Formats: sequence, C-alpha cells, structure tokens
Amino acid sequence: MREIKQPGKHSYVFSPYLEPIAKVKPGEEVVIYTDDAFENKITKETDVPSEILGKYLNPQTGPIYIEGAEPGDTLIAHIIDIQPTRDWAVSILNPYFGGLTATPTTKMLHEPLPEKVWIYELRDGMLVNNTQLSFPWRPFMGTIGTAPDLEAVSALTPADHGGNMDVPDTKPGNSVYLPVNVPGAYFYTGDCHAGQGEGELCGVAMEISGKVTMKFELIKGKSINWPRIESPTEIMAVGSARPMEDAARIAYGELIEWMIELGWDQLDAYQALSQIGKLYVGNMVDTNYSLVAKIEKKYAYIDKN
Amino acid sequence: MREIKQPGKHSYVFSPYLEPIAKVKPGEEVVIYTDDAFENKITKETDVPSEILGKYLNPQTGPIYIEGAEPGDTLIAHIIDIQPTRDWAVSILNPYFGGLTATPTTKMLHEPLPEKVWIYELRDGMLVNNTQLSFPWRPFMGTIGTAPDLEAVSALTPADHGGNMDVPDTKPGNSVYLPVNVPGAYFYTGDCHAGQGEGELCGVAMEISGKVTMKFELIKGKSINWPRIESPTEIMAVGSARPMEDAARIAYGELIEWMIELGWDQLDAYQALSQIGKLYVGNMVDTNYSLVAKIEKKYAYIDKN
Amino acid sequence: MREIKQPGKHSYVFSPYLEPIAKVKPGEEVVIYTDDAFENKITKETDVPSEILGKYLNPQTGPIYIEGAEPGDTLIAHIIDIQPTRDWAVSILNPYFGGLTATPTTKMLHEPLPEKVWIYELRDGMLVNNTQLSFPWRPFMGTIGTAPDLEAVSALTPADHGGNMDVPDTKPGNSVYLPVNVPGAYFYTGDCHAGQGEGELCGVAMEISGKVTMKFELIKGKSINWPRIESPTEIMAVGSARPMEDAARIAYGELIEWMIELGWDQLDAYQALSQIGKLYVGNMVDTNYSLVAKIEKKYAYIDKN
Amino acid sequence: MREIKQPGKHSYVFSPYLEPIAKVKPGEEVVIYTDDAFENKITKETDVPSEILGKYLNPQTGPIYIEGAEPGDTLIAHIIDIQPTRDWAVSILNPYFGGLTATPTTKMLHEPLPEKVWIYELRDGMLVNNTQLSFPWRPFMGTIGTAPDLEAVSALTPADHGGNMDVPDTKPGNSVYLPVNVPGAYFYTGDCHAGQGEGELCGVAMEISGKVTMKFELIKGKSINWPRIESPTEIMAVGSARPMEDAARIAYGELIEWMIELGWDQLDAYQALSQIGKLYVGNMVDTNYSLVAKIEKKYAYIDKN
Repeated sequence: MREIKQPGKHSYVFSPYLEPIAKVKPGEEVVIYTDDAFENKITKETDVPSEILGKYLNPQTGPIYIEGAEPGDTLIAHIIDIQPTRDWAVSILNPYFGGLTATPTTKMLHEPLPEKVWIYELRDGMLVNNTQLSFPWRPFMGTIGTAPDLEAVSALTPADHGGNMDVPDTKPGNSVYLPVNVPGAYFYTGDCHAGQGEGELCGVAMEISGKVTMKFELIKGKSINWPRIESPTEIMAVGSARPMEDAARIAYGELIEWMIELGWDQLDAYQALSQIGKLYVGNMVDTNYSLVAKIEKKYAYIDKN
Repeated sequence: MREIKQPGKHSYVFSPYLEPIAKVKPGEEVVIYTDDAFENKITKETDVPSEILGKYLNPQTGPIYIEGAEPGDTLIAHIIDIQPTRDWAVSILNPYFGGLTATPTTKMLHEPLPEKVWIYELRDGMLVNNTQLSFPWRPFMGTIGTAPDLEAVSALTPADHGGNMDVPDTKPGNSVYLPVNVPGAYFYTGDCHAGQGEGELCGVAMEISGKVTMKFELIKGKSINWPRIESPTEIMAVGSARPMEDAARIAYGELIEWMIELGWDQLDAYQALSQIGKLYVGNMVDTNYSLVAKIEKKYAYIDKN
Repeated sequence: MREIKQPGKHSYVFSPYLEPIAKVKPGEEVVIYTDDAFENKITKETDVPSEILGKYLNPQTGPIYIEGAEPGDTLIAHIIDIQPTRDWAVSILNPYFGGLTATPTTKMLHEPLPEKVWIYELRDGMLVNNTQLSFPWRPFMGTIGTAPDLEAVSALTPADHGGNMDVPDTKPGNSVYLPVNVPGAYFYTGDCHAGQGEGELCGVAMEISGKVTMKFELIKGKSINWPRIESPTEIMAVGSARPMEDAARIAYGELIEWMIELGWDQLDAYQALSQIGKLYVGNMVDTNYSLVAKIEKKYAYIDKN
Repeated sequence: MREIKQPGKHSYVFSPYLEPIAKVKPGEEVVIYTDDAFENKITKETDVPSEILGKYLNPQTGPIYIEGAEPGDTLIAHIIDIQPTRDWAVSILNPYFGGLTATPTTKMLHEPLPEKVWIYELRDGMLVNNTQLSFPWRPFMGTIGTAPDLEAVSALTPADHGGNMDVPDTKPGNSVYLPVNVPGAYFYTGDCHAGQGEGELCGVAMEISGKVTMKFELIKGKSINWPRIESPTEIMAVGSARPMEDAARIAYGELIEWMIELGWDQLDAYQALSQIGKLYVGNMVDTNYSLVAKIEKKYAYIDKN
C-alpha cells in the first residue's frame, strides 16, 4: 500500500496556498503518517512544555490532492485503520490552555495553572500512566479536513472545513464527509489521539504519532455546509463555533438538512431529533468548540411506506 | 405504599414560601403523582398551543418536606420506578421556544415557526406517532430539585438547586444528589418525560403524566454546590448556565470536586476526565442550558494502593 | 417630603411575597433611604471582605406599594435627585467575583485573586482614594425594579423586572420604565453608586449609602417586556442576559419596539439604529450582563410629514 | 502626496501570501483608495443584494509593505483624514446576516428577513435617505489591520490582527496600534463607513468608497497582543471574540496591560477601570464581536508623584 509521509516541514495551517505532497485517486487505499501535536518534542514527565514548545502546534500531514475533486463536491474520507508508530502517548497541562483555565480569549488576571506532563505507556491495548490513570486504546484523528478556498486556517481551529475538531467519532470504521473548496480538495490530517474524553477537558488528549489507513470517495456536484460523519449505525454532523450553543445549533441544524435529503419533512426531523437525537461535546478547549449531533440509522432511514 | 398527590394547585416555582404538601422520612418509599408540563391540557393534534396554554407551564408536585433535612445537608433522591398514568404522550412546537428558533432572550426579528402538536400512543414499550416517529419508552423526571433558601425560581429554570434540568439520567435506577437549602429541603418534582433526545431540541420531550416511586436519603453535614447523579456504573455532575460553555465548566468542575472527595489529586482528576470523561447536552432550550459530565466508577473508584 | 426607610431587615430578593413597607401615590415625591451593597459593613482598607460579609449582599429598600398599579401597566420611576448619607464610598475585590476572574459559573481551577478594599473620601464633588484613584461624583441607583409575579429573584440578578442592572443611566434627571407584574408593582431600590465605569469591571462600584428622591407615574394598560430609560435627550432599553450578545439583542430589540410605538416601520428602525444607535455595557459581572441600547430623541422622534 | 490604489483585484483576506502593492516608509503621508464593502456593485434601492453580490465581500486595499517593520514591532497607523470618492452611501439587509437575525452560525429554522437597500445622499455633511433616515457624516475605516504570520484571515473577520473590527474610533484624528507579525507588516485597509451606530446592528453601515490619508510609525521591539487606539484624549483597546463577554474581557484586559506599561499596579488599574472605564460595542454582527474599552488620558496618565 502507498505510504504518504510529509517530505519537509509539516503544515500548521489548512491552506490552499501550499504544494500538494501527494496525489491520490478516489478508491485508492493509502497510509498517512502523522506526528503528534507537539512535533514529538515532549518525551518525559520532567519536560517543561513552555520551554520546549515552539510558537506553532499541531503539525498536519498534507495537503493531499484528491484527483477529480472540484469545488462544490463532497469528499468522503473513509478511516479504515489507525496504528501507533511508537509505544507511548503524552498529555500535558500547557499554560493558559484548557477547559478550566483562563485563556488568551477568556482573559483573566489569574496566574496560569501549573505545567505538567503525563506519559502513558501503550501495552496490551491500554495506555498506562499509573494504576489510576490507565485507559483503553481508542484511537482517532483529532484533526482532519480540507483547505478553505481563500483563507489559511490555523491547524488549532475547527470550523466548517473540519480541522481540529477533536471529536472521537473520526475513528476507524467511520467515514468523514468534508466540503471540497478548491480543486483537489487539499486534504490534511494529523493530531492522532490514542484516546480522549468528551470535551478534551485539559486541552490535550493522549497524543501519539501514528499512521492512518484511509480511502477517499467523491460525491460529485453535491455540497455540504459542515462536516458530517457516518458510522455503521449512525449519521452525525459536527458544528464548531463559539459560544457552545452555536456549535449545538449548527450540529443539529446540519443533521436536519441531512435528514431532509433522506426524505424527511423539516419539522418532523426537528421533532425526531428532539426525542431520539444525541449531542455530545467533542472539545471545549479549542478556538472553536465542536459538538457532535447524531441519530441512529434505524430511526433516520425508516421506510416511509 | 404512601401516595403523594398535589392537594390543590401545582406549583410553578421552586419556592421556600409554600406550605409542604407532605412530610416524608428518609428511607420511606413513596409514590409521587405528576401532571404533564402542559397541565394535561393539550390532548390532540388539532390543538393550538398558544390558544390553550396559560401563562405558567411545568406544574410541579411539592413541596415535600423531608424530615431531618437541614441547610448544609445533601438530599439523595433515589428514583426507583416511573410509571405512566395514561397511555399517550405529547410534544409540541410552541412559538419562540426551542433550540433552533429565536426566543425572548435570543431576540430576533423573525416571525415564529409554525405551531404543531404530535401525539404519541404508548403501546408495547414504544411511543408511536407514525412509522417514522416511533421511539422507545425511556422515562425520566425532567424536573427535580429542592427549594433555594431565599429565591423562588421558575419551574422552567434549571440551576444549582436542580429544577428543570431535562437530563435523561434522572431516571429509574439512578440517584440524584441535591443541596438542602432550607429545613425540610422542600423537594419538588414533575415534568415526566416518556423519552427525550439529548438537547431536547424543539424544547419539548414526549410529555406524559406519571407517578414516580422514590426513596430519600440524607447525607448530614455535607453540602454540594451543584446536583450530582449516581448510576450503578457512573458518577455524574450537572451544570446549568448560559452560555453553554459555562454549564460545561460547572459540570466538569463539580465532578472534579467529587473525585477529590474520593481521594484524587486535583490535577490528576482533571487529567483523567480529559481522557475518559463523557459530556452530553441535556437541554439546549431552557432558561439555562444543562450539561452532564460523567465518569465510569471503574475509573473513578480505582484502588490507589 | 415623605421619607421612606426600611423598618426592619432589608430585602435580598425582588419578591412578591413580602409586606409593603410603604404605599405611595403616583405623583407624590418621596425620599427613599438605602444601605450600601455590603450592608455598610466594610469601612476601612484593612477589612477582609470574606471575613466580614455574610451570605447575602445588596440589601434593597422595599417593597414599596404604588397605588393603582395593576399587572399589565407600566411604572415610571422618575429619579429626581440622589444624595449621599455619608462622606465616603467603598469598593472591593471579593473572591471569585468580577469581570476578569473565574466565578462560580465560569468555573475554573485557579486560586482566587487577592482580596482588597479601597475607601474613597467624598469631597468637593470628587471621590478620592489617592491622586491616581480620584473620580467625579456621578451617582445612580445600581439596583432598581419591580417584583416578578411568581418568582422571588435575588437582588444580585438583573432581568426583565429590572433589578441589579448596574447601568449608569438610572440616574437623576432620567426616568426608568418598569413592568408591573403584581398589584401595587412592589417597587424596590438600593445599591447606590457614587460612580461606576461601564462594565463595573471588578464587580464593585464606589458603593455608598444614600437617599434618592423619586416620583412615580403609571401608564395604565400598557405593558413593556424589558426596562426602558428616558433621559432629556435619549430613549433607551436595557437587556440583561447571558451570553452578552443576548443582552445586546434584547436591548436593541426592545428599542425597536419602542420606535415602532413612535410610528416607525420595523425595518427602518432596524436601519436607523444601525447608523446612529449607541450600545454600551452596564455590567459584565452580575448573574446576567446588562447592556443599554439608546438613540437620541432628535433621531427617534423625527416628524414623518 | 503619494496615492495608493489597488493595481489589480482587491484582497478578501488579510494574508501574508500576497505581493505588496506598495512600499511605504514610516513618517511618509500617503493616500489610500478603497472600494466599498460590496465592491461598489449596489447602487440603487431596487437592487437585490443576493442576486448581485458574489461570494466574497469587503475588498481590502493592500498589502502595503511598511519599511523596517519586523515581527515583534508595533505598527501605528495615524489616520489623518478620510474623504469620500462619491456622493452617496449604501446600506442593505442581506439574508441571514445581521444582529437580529439567524445566521449560518446562530443557525435556526427561520426563513430569512426581507432583503432591502437604502441609498443615502451625501450633502452638506449629512447622509440623507429621507427625513427620518438622515445622519451626520462621521467617517471611519471599518476594516484595518496587518497580516497574521501563518494564517490568511477573511476580510470579514476581526481578530488580534485588527481586521473587520467596525469600531467607530478608527477615525481621523486617532491612531491605531497593530501587531507586526511578518516583515513589512503587510498593512491592509478598506470598508470605509460614512457613519455607523455602535453594534452595526443590521450588519451594514453606510458604506462608501473613500480615500484615507495615513502616516505610519513603528515602535521597534515592542509587541502588543490586541489592537489599541489612541485619541487626543483617550487610550483604548479592542477585543474581538465570541461570545461577547470574551471580547469584553480581552478589551479591558489589554487596556490594563497598557496601564501597567504606564506605571500602574495591576489591581489599581483594575479598580480604576471599574470606576471610570468605558465599554461599547463596535460590532455585534461579524464572525467575531468587537468591543472597545477606553479610559481618558487624564485618568490614565496621572502623575504618581
């Protein structure tokens, strides 16, 4: 299988202004290698993040040019498998970053919380820091998306192009639907997470370098406004915005649009999601918050006859 | 078993200023009857909500005086069983109320969305409107809480006293921890939901009149800041606030406090929830939004030795 | 002139459940005495607020029964004069309260900011702490409103009944329009500010005990949704909500409704406010944020012929 | 005086990836020509915006290379004069854009508000649509900023680089302080407003094509986090974020940092702004909201001896 590795520096933006590092045909399975969100620089618990980390975080592999993709199409990224490329993961507390701390935008007069590093060993399907901090291997790509057509967006930001959504449903077995804004789509991914709770509370999952096996598919001439995800049993939409209620409105609003495409009346879809929809927080720490709205296929795809 | 029914008018506030309708001892099992959120007034799909509904909604049964409860204690309401007292449920679209509409506070210049009524028949464990709108019976109490000490809070509002949280985990088999602010706790409940999606998107679950079997327990001399929930396998905290990120901060913040009581170091609890916590939206429609943060007991209660 | 002083304890809620302390006829001028927001308890810079202050803050004088007021009317409180009843004011930093600190709802893991007290001497129309902290006497009532009909709302909360709005335009020479929700209106006021910046950034103005000269007027059979203010040259509406954009939407939305009453087409009013409206932050620290939208009368009252 | 006109297409992004259109030395006065926010395409009240407008709005003139500017410096843009280049201005209602409407991020199920165009004639210092809609000429640059170092940010977005702040204080006589992120600073401006209310309520000011006379100055080796503005009598900081309270926190937080540079103790600056600061809403309609915090120089620059 073809392997795609970043030839030079990784990208810190989802940008239409970079040269593609590879061209991939729809239907071809490829393996994409990714660095961890800290450029693999933090390796032990005595490291001090603020002394080690540079200005840019969350390096992305890409852009990958998808042949045949044109603006107005939808790109489906089928995530087939994720494997680690090392046997440990890392999480940290970084000053003024996280869900329960002042940040540069939720600006306050407090001193930063302490810095801290946790190293997890990956063994027997578990990530083990100590007996208390010991969690199962549940890998997903924290960051995945396409280039906007005019903007170059920080790899730390989730938005309508996808990006740093940090939602655990971008995982093996699921398919991610992304808008195509430029010829070739300019797909990027990175930020492999060995596991993460909903909300990514302290701002950092169990970060790992990895390789992801993907296959791409195009829906020609059909556009979407926000990323969608399909699992074997559910359909989902992801909204990324602030305040968090706007992310919720987007996620459920886009899911209603999907249901309308499946034949639903708008108000009946609104009603169905009121009674059987699910809505969880992917991240509450990034420059936009990401929420996932979902409905089981058995309710969404019901035969109307 | 003793049955508690509202003798006169139900209450539309969580208030310390009303006379208790019953006194209950900790440990005694009681059955509490509740009206639906529309005072049982909407009964068919041709009803027009704005013509039928009065100024006040969400009638509560209470206050129920819990013997021995003193300010500074914690009241545990064990929800043992919920049964319907009729064989149908109702959901509606009410003007300027819901998750994807302008409201009196998210004020806009739009005309209201159409009004609409859905009636669900309850049969064979399913709530059936038509073949598309057909969902399982998953009952819970939408509104449950204690009186504040000085304020009288609308039954439509969730806050630190509990109230209209609309979180599906206040269900049979689970225990709800509530602050005691006045002698006797002044417990209220109502708003029985035959089922509801996360977010309660259109603002209205499948509303039903019901009876709930409960047993109360007191933790003397221990106070909590926000409601907590315990299931057989998980511990949870509920935050209710606007914007939604504040509800998220409260929920995870209170859960960290619970974990500290279980012996966790604060920053390790912050880390654990980052990797294994869950965070879903109970309601995105009430005067405060309610989010539930949770962690499985097998991660929270791990032996530290 | 009749003087109204609280006979017993002040009220810490805007409540319909209390006995009126006085009855006033529309048109009668009265003087109302108010304590400062800390019950006059903090008197020197060595005081430690968290050791001195009790559970309840912001004592209100009231309820004052306005004769003839019926639900559905509008009460106008004309503020004629405000005088201090002592020659000093106080501001403090209180733990977890203020605009640039974590709070119980914007919950974080930070330690609280330091506590601090500033005493200002009032002399020659200036409030003087030192040469740097020296500001003019610009008094207004931080808290002013009527009782809700069913709820009893904390005196710390601003909402559609008025309350703790902390907007500097509730000052001498201006008139405050308030909804009447119960017979007699149940008017309360307190929280006299010797001066305050927009936003009340640290959470506390220059607090002073005072007496306010007022005259009441009723508009029979006309209701308003949110407080309005009239100055000699401007009309204004106050929105109180979270997040702050909802307060902004309410303030401008209610002002458009006022302009429609003056004969404006809705979309033209929307347009006029886009070009000539003003919008400032009264408080960014209370349980709801309060914003004031305004337009000069010379633009609002233009002759349409 | 040297005149700078966009040689080809205007830019719709604040981008470090474009070729400078001019090089300017600090101290040199230049005149910069700008198109209106609709590319001058809407010219009469019968125009239908959604039929005329393309995908991109708010064309910027730039980038202008400031000689000697290096990352870490601060660029001061002195606004000396703004003149219109035509005798009319335009405002519109655009579908799903504005302060009192659903938008793509505050997503709802409402139909859009009506579209509408208002043309204002500029004569005798007034902008006149009719006798009701008639407002003074108060020009300012709605959009002004520098390029980020890695991102290319939409010209519709205000952020820490400046951009589409829509704050009426970026006007003649005032100086705008901007961060320098790339060599040459890459300055852009556009979106000349003939006048605008606080909040820019309907989303559109009185838009006009114009020419602005500016002079640039560099502060070497001193960086700022967010834009600042200096008028002859005040110092100000601009915060742009969502929700609006975060914009408020940034604005006052950055102003405290400026006061600390002037010799203030942090908590005394916090106190001073609580009593004498001003805080108004520039825009409540763009992808981030922009708030301006300010203090008069007579309070900020007081002699400490």
